[in-house]
Amino acid sequence: MKVTLQTDVLTNNNRAASYNRELFEKTKTLVVNVMSSPGAGKTTLLEETLIALAGKYRIGVIEGDLATQKDADRIRALGAHAIQINTHGGCHLDARMVAAVLPEFDFDETDILFIENVGNLVCPSGYDLGQSHKVAVLSVPEGNDKISKYPTMFMRTELVLLNKIDLLPYLDFDVNMAIEDLKGINADSKLIKVSARSKEGLDEWFSWIEGAYKACVSQER
Amino acid sequence: MKVTLQTDVLTNNNRAASYNRELFEKTKTLVVNVMSSPGAGKTTLLEETLIALAGKYRIGVIEGDLATQKDADRIRALGAHAIQINTHGGCHLDARMVAAVLPEFDFDETDILFIENVGNLVCPSGYDLGQSHKVAVLSVPEGNDKISKYPTMFMRTELVLLNKIDLLPYLDFDVNMAIEDLKGINADSKLIKVSARSKEGLDEWFSWIEGAYKACVSQER
Repeated sequence: MKVTLQTDVLTNNNRAASYNRELFEKTKTLVVNVMSSPGAGKTTLLEETLIALAGKYRIGVIEGDLATQKDADRIRALGAHAIQINTHGGCHLDARMVAAVLPEFDFDETDILFIENVGNLVCPSGYDLGQSHKVAVLSVPEGNDKISKYPTMFMRTELVLLNKIDLLPYLDFDVNMAIEDLKGINADSKLIKVSARSKEGLDEWFSWIEGAYKACVSQER
Repeated sequence: MKVTLQTDVLTNNNRAASYNRELFEKTKTLVVNVMSSPGAGKTTLLEETLIALAGKYRIGVIEGDLATQKDADRIRALGAHAIQINTHGGCHLDARMVAAVLPEFDFDETDILFIENVGNLVCPSGYDLGQSHKVAVLSVPEGNDKISKYPTMFMRTELVLLNKIDLLPYLDFDVNMAIEDLKGINADSKLIKVSARSKEGLDEWFSWIEGAYKACVSQER
């Protein structure tokens, strides 16, 4: 009985995700689902991304949080269109929550949609939102053991942004061990070292987005 | 239907928690459920706590993680009795998982049991494990907005250990705003500033444990 219900929840989620994906593919919108622990720097990374790319792409943002409009307010302060989803205690975004706010965007006039998930290194990885790509942010203060201790996130994401590398001199984070652990869990995953604060490494992340966008719009339908 | 099942899950959890609590109270064992985001420093804080208090109290530790024995190994390296629970993808410990490993401890010969929950600032707060006290660890690199953005954790914990204060000079964490936010969400909660690395503030945490232990053993049954 419990297994059946869990299956139903995921079946319903996957159906909603496929409807979302259908819309994103039809309108050639690149959709990136960004996940991490609380405070790994997702919003600050998105702020820097908007500053760098907003002149070139029309970018929308969905913000997921248990409570408050704080993250959407930060994104709106940069002039971007941002919609806040409050999960009221819920630990992840699901595809139906996302579907419910999609009409707030005009996807014929949107190139890229970033979905900033609830800060949680476990639950969000289990829910397909219909995105084009899943990206995990891991921050240096969390420690290099997190990839092996939270494998479900890193086996389901194709890119890891290792953020806050400006703090490496003050902490014992072993970058090589993190890269080794990632290879062991997901050989196809890529890791980019960045600092949203010092801006180091951000160009490589922006190039990744540009490549993903080009692949997205050139896709045959 | 969904509501009923959710109620059943919590009813079963609460029943297991009450059995756990009965055992802990009967044996006058102080049980502290420690929760936080991944990488906030729970294990390092427990290591320092063991080093400081193991001469005075008989301490056991339950470690919760999705995967690996890494945290239990760190605790065992200090000579303490530690049992690792692997949730295999699960986002929190529940009272039944804890009940299943309790026979690994002799509670007539244990003064304090620390339960280090899965690193997750959302889900663990919803599950009573039968503990005497719930403690949240928040670390400076996560940012001072986390208390208002993850209210379910902070409204259900009675003590916040603000960890990694040695990093305050390098980051923009507003301690006063964190304290204000905490007051607004949970007026009874206390905040202690600590650094497991520089050891600043740890004495206040140890005093809190000693006070809690005295209250625990002096309780009438």
